[in-house]
Amino acid sequence: MRVLVNISYQGSQFLGFQIQQHGRTIQQQFEKILKRMHKHEVRIHPSSRTDRGVHAIEQYFHFDTDLNIPKQQWQYAMNRALPDDIYVNHVRFVSDDFHCRYDCVGKSYRYKVYQGDHKNPFLCGLQTYIPEKLDIEKMNIAAQYFIGTHDFTGFCSQKTEVESKVRTLYDSHIEKTENGFDYIVTGSGFLYNMVRVLIAFLIEVGKGKRQPEEVPHLLNAKDRKQVPFTAPAEGLYLEKIYLTPNALIQDFGNNIKIHQKKSSQNL
Amino acid sequence: MRVLVNISYQGSQFLGFQIQQHGRTIQQQFEKILKRMHKHEVRIHPSSRTDRGVHAIEQYFHFDTDLNIPKQQWQYAMNRALPDDIYVNHVRFVSDDFHCRYDCVGKSYRYKVYQGDHKNPFLCGLQTYIPEKLDIEKMNIAAQYFIGTHDFTGFCSQKTEVESKVRTLYDSHIEKTENGFDYIVTGSGFLYNMVRVLIAFLIEVGKGKRQPEEVPHLLNAKDRKQVPFTAPAEGLYLEKIYLTPNALIQDFGNNIKIHQKKSSQNL
Repeated sequence: MRVLVNISYQGSQFLGFQIQQHGRTIQQQFEKILKRMHKHEVRIHPSSRTDRGVHAIEQYFHFDTDLNIPKQQWQYAMNRALPDDIYVNHVRFVSDDFHCRYDCVGKSYRYKVYQGDHKNPFLCGLQTYIPEKLDIEKMNIAAQYFIGTHDFTGFCSQKTEVESKVRTLYDSHIEKTENGFDYIVTGSGFLYNMVRVLIAFLIEVGKGKRQPEEVPHLLNAKDRKQVPFTAPAEGLYLEKIYLTPNALIQDFGNNIKIHQKKSSQNL
Repeated sequence: MRVLVNISYQGSQFLGFQIQQHGRTIQQQFEKILKRMHKHEVRIHPSSRTDRGVHAIEQYFHFDTDLNIPKQQWQYAMNRALPDDIYVNHVRFVSDDFHCRYDCVGKSYRYKVYQGDHKNPFLCGLQTYIPEKLDIEKMNIAAQYFIGTHDFTGFCSQKTEVESKVRTLYDSHIEKTENGFDYIVTGSGFLYNMVRVLIAFLIEVGKGKRQPEEVPHLLNAKDRKQVPFTAPAEGLYLEKIYLTPNALIQDFGNNIKIHQKKSSQNL
């Protein structure tokens, strides 16, 4: 049986999602619990790997089990055993051909920045502090240049090891907040460090050091050296995972059962 | 010259205020910076010692220096060297007979609780989670019984090593918040673990397990065994330090200078 788990976490005290030889990671926390329950190793597969210090408002992973446990019970058992900086929001059973990574068709990130005269120790690890005045309007113009299908070679880590660096962004904009602003970006997928490079560039625009009109040229140039900064991890939140409807097909029962349920609600 | 420093800190990643053989403390962070600046050890003296995991919205300490540095520069130098979970709000020069501990005539604490169906990983370390429904009105009645001068032997850690356990509370009440409530308590001074024992008792009242009317009897009993719980540190904030006007007397210049300034503002 394949189990799909929706989680949130505060990334400050984690080395990231992926398991590492030493240190605290999200994967390690869950696999430790699942091993104890199954008496053998159980691998989990996330929709997205997050880096050290990056948070998730919504993240998914799946795993396979032969334990016969109701879904509410899965949630309860995991939340009981988890530390306070991770929380299981809900659990679903899915069909065996669902895969968190391959059935993920998009993601939204939110990057939180706070401003003002004073650093706030209570936002440490949760938002990035930028004391300088920024031109939010200009940043928004620049942000919109990223929307569409582009080769983002110039806007990701040079360590990115994927064949194609073409990605589609559906949304990219700045929203003012009480104490600063958020950058919200939604896309088909993201390259390594991509959101942190995008927002670092937008902040340079806000400071007047770069111009929105440079974006098309920089996308064409495909040269990371022309976009040298990476914003810190602490402001970055994985906010939403878009899954295919495959995630709705339950392992118990089948398509028809679900559709019947839906149509009976429509009567 | 005596320097008075007003600071805030997020306590989650500290073993408390006081220096320890091993581990991260507030005192250690400041004394490390001051040693580097002075080329010798400099001791700092806080108004209040906070425990592991306890936060401070306002805390004071003082130290003596022979360095001739303007106060703005002190603030700047310390903030530059401090980690992001501590912040220096302001620096003042005070007379040599001012002492952070002996010139502290009161303190306010705030204890933050959040409620609801789900634990929030982003409040981990910052607020205490209580899922049970609580009778806030009853808690407020109980809270008010603590106001006044009482022997708080029954409401502090048995490890408290002070001669008199009589303290005066000027305020003690519950305030509803967006996601739960805060307990605010102001007093002449507090015994070891006192606020955490008080709020733990109030939560028992909220759950209906204790009655507000028990408070006078429990104060008289002076028996900690009858009030056995201690709320976790993570919800506790040192919120305000009340200093004597001695803190206004600057080391440079004198009383008159300050009074002149004040009266000229009144013209």
